[in-house]
Amino acid sequence: MSFAGLLVMLDYGAVLIFALTGALVASRAQLDPVGFIFMAALTAVGGGTLRDLILGRETVFWVEQPTYILIAAGAALLVFWTAHLFESRYRLLVWLDSVALAVAVAAGVGVAMEEGYGPVIIVIMGIVTGTFGGLMRDVVGNEVPLVLKQGQLYLTAAFGGALMAAGLDWLGFQRGEALIACAVIVWVLRAGSLIWGWKLPVYRPRPPRTRG
Amino acid sequence: MSFAGLLVMLDYGAVLIFALTGALVASRAQLDPVGFIFMAALTAVGGGTLRDLILGRETVFWVEQPTYILIAAGAALLVFWTAHLFESRYRLLVWLDSVALAVAVAAGVGVAMEEGYGPVIIVIMGIVTGTFGGLMRDVVGNEVPLVLKQGQLYLTAAFGGALMAAGLDWLGFQRGEALIACAVIVWVLRAGSLIWGWKLPVYRPRPPRTRG
Amino acid sequence: MSFAGLLVMLDYGAVLIFALTGALVASRAQLDPVGFIFMAALTAVGGGTLRDLILGRETVFWVEQPTYILIAAGAALLVFWTAHLFESRYRLLVWLDSVALAVAVAAGVGVAMEEGYGPVIIVIMGIVTGTFGGLMRDVVGNEVPLVLKQGQLYLTAAFGGALMAAGLDWLGFQRGEALIACAVIVWVLRAGSLIWGWKLPVYRPRPPRTRG
Repeated sequence: MSFAGLLVMLDYGAVLIFALTGALVASRAQLDPVGFIFMAALTAVGGGTLRDLILGRETVFWVEQPTYILIAAGAALLVFWTAHLFESRYRLLVWLDSVALAVAVAAGVGVAMEEGYGPVIIVIMGIVTGTFGGLMRDVVGNEVPLVLKQGQLYLTAAFGGALMAAGLDWLGFQRGEALIACAVIVWVLRAGSLIWGWKLPVYRPRPPRTRG
Repeated sequence: MSFAGLLVMLDYGAVLIFALTGALVASRAQLDPVGFIFMAALTAVGGGTLRDLILGRETVFWVEQPTYILIAAGAALLVFWTAHLFESRYRLLVWLDSVALAVAVAAGVGVAMEEGYGPVIIVIMGIVTGTFGGLMRDVVGNEVPLVLKQGQLYLTAAFGGALMAAGLDWLGFQRGEALIACAVIVWVLRAGSLIWGWKLPVYRPRPPRTRG
Repeated sequence: MSFAGLLVMLDYGAVLIFALTGALVASRAQLDPVGFIFMAALTAVGGGTLRDLILGRETVFWVEQPTYILIAAGAALLVFWTAHLFESRYRLLVWLDSVALAVAVAAGVGVAMEEGYGPVIIVIMGIVTGTFGGLMRDVVGNEVPLVLKQGQLYLTAAFGGALMAAGLDWLGFQRGEALIACAVIVWVLRAGSLIWGWKLPVYRPRPPRTRG
């Protein structure tokens, strides 16, 4: 597969899986089907839209190819009719989100590589693409943002994968390989954090302050 | 009136009415006059700004024509000095918002039509222009977002109107007619929901989960 | 110093100080070091990014010059290791934020002047650049947004300074002088509000409504 083909596949994958998580948040907020579609589409294309705007790309990816939105809408309706089959929707949400994060970080890294940016911008675009869709989902849907969960690897997983990809690219590895390594590392770090509690030390010198 | 003239009128109408709703949220948060202007302007131009950025239009509409901002500021001060005359500011807010939603969806649909986009992008731009100003208002002003109110038509009203406009355009109706039909349908659906409780089925297989 | 040089210095100053405030919010949320970097970078470049997108500048400032991000990351780690030395992190946050606000308003005003915009856009870009980084910090970090604190000058301080700069520019003063006056006025108004309770009258005709 060509590098451009891999990028398109990653974008489609991230859109589909993030859409499922957005719809799950809609189910927790007890919205109607159009609300499911809204939350799914917001989550699915939010990070990539911000990436495209910041990089000044000629056209935002889903404006050029509206199929992305139709996929998100289909995923939303699928969840509307099937979410009750799952015992814990929150657990499902968190695990789907981990896969979407991994795929979207790789998609963001890949676009920045393709446009010829240096390592700092490559890493940032991986993190932006990976995390801002979910962040918008959580802020709009009134959930505690996953990026802020204490004692879990989330931003760190995204950062680790994006950094690895930038490093492999710099070392001369093929870009396709770098992206796949990136997605694997993000997911392994995130999954390890969810299962075995892997984490970095957090800031905790004293009890948290009350909101001032 | 020309189609371009109708578009400008819709943009001015949406800015004015959304500004009033932003100022009402500022009154509920007990801000000072500059706070009223900030919330009014954010609500008034938030959705249209996002639309212009996503579509990559050469200039954001209010940067080209700052009168929009002055209108929003005037509306904010009007509310600052008169809001206490209304018995229920929240009721006024919700009803003004319904009119602003209708006008702004039509404005977004019209711009996307004028720029030559297909039906999916037309519908999305209607929804984005109609809902994101109010969404920013509610997130910043710490209100429960109207788009998330359970058992009310809000996104569905925007979706229905935008879809109708795209359909009428496709059937060969004049664009001006399509936009007016769009605004009417959005408003009727939203008003019917507020008065008679029209709604779509919501997702409610079991009690909502606590925040995880 | 040239006007372009002053602009760059203001951007660096705003990035550095806002980054410190973002990291302090991360400390209140007890995040890990990567979370500190995320909050610091979001706060540091959020307002300027929005300014650059709205003005349609060719490249967002930190994409052209990623050093800004590295500075924000350095500031984040500094706070991670030293924040416990301060008796009141919230007090430190508020005061640093007042300096960052002053510098960032001047930076936004300066960019809009340099691009040749009129007084309305100059004032707005000052306010946007000054306030949106902190607003994103507070919304994502789940703090009460400083822009919404009742009975304090915040938006008004930004507005006053930006208006003064636009006025001095119009009267024929040198732009560098106008920017410095702008920063001084913003900071004095904000500091006076924090110390002596300077404020504008707020809207308070009756007790606030409960969320509807």
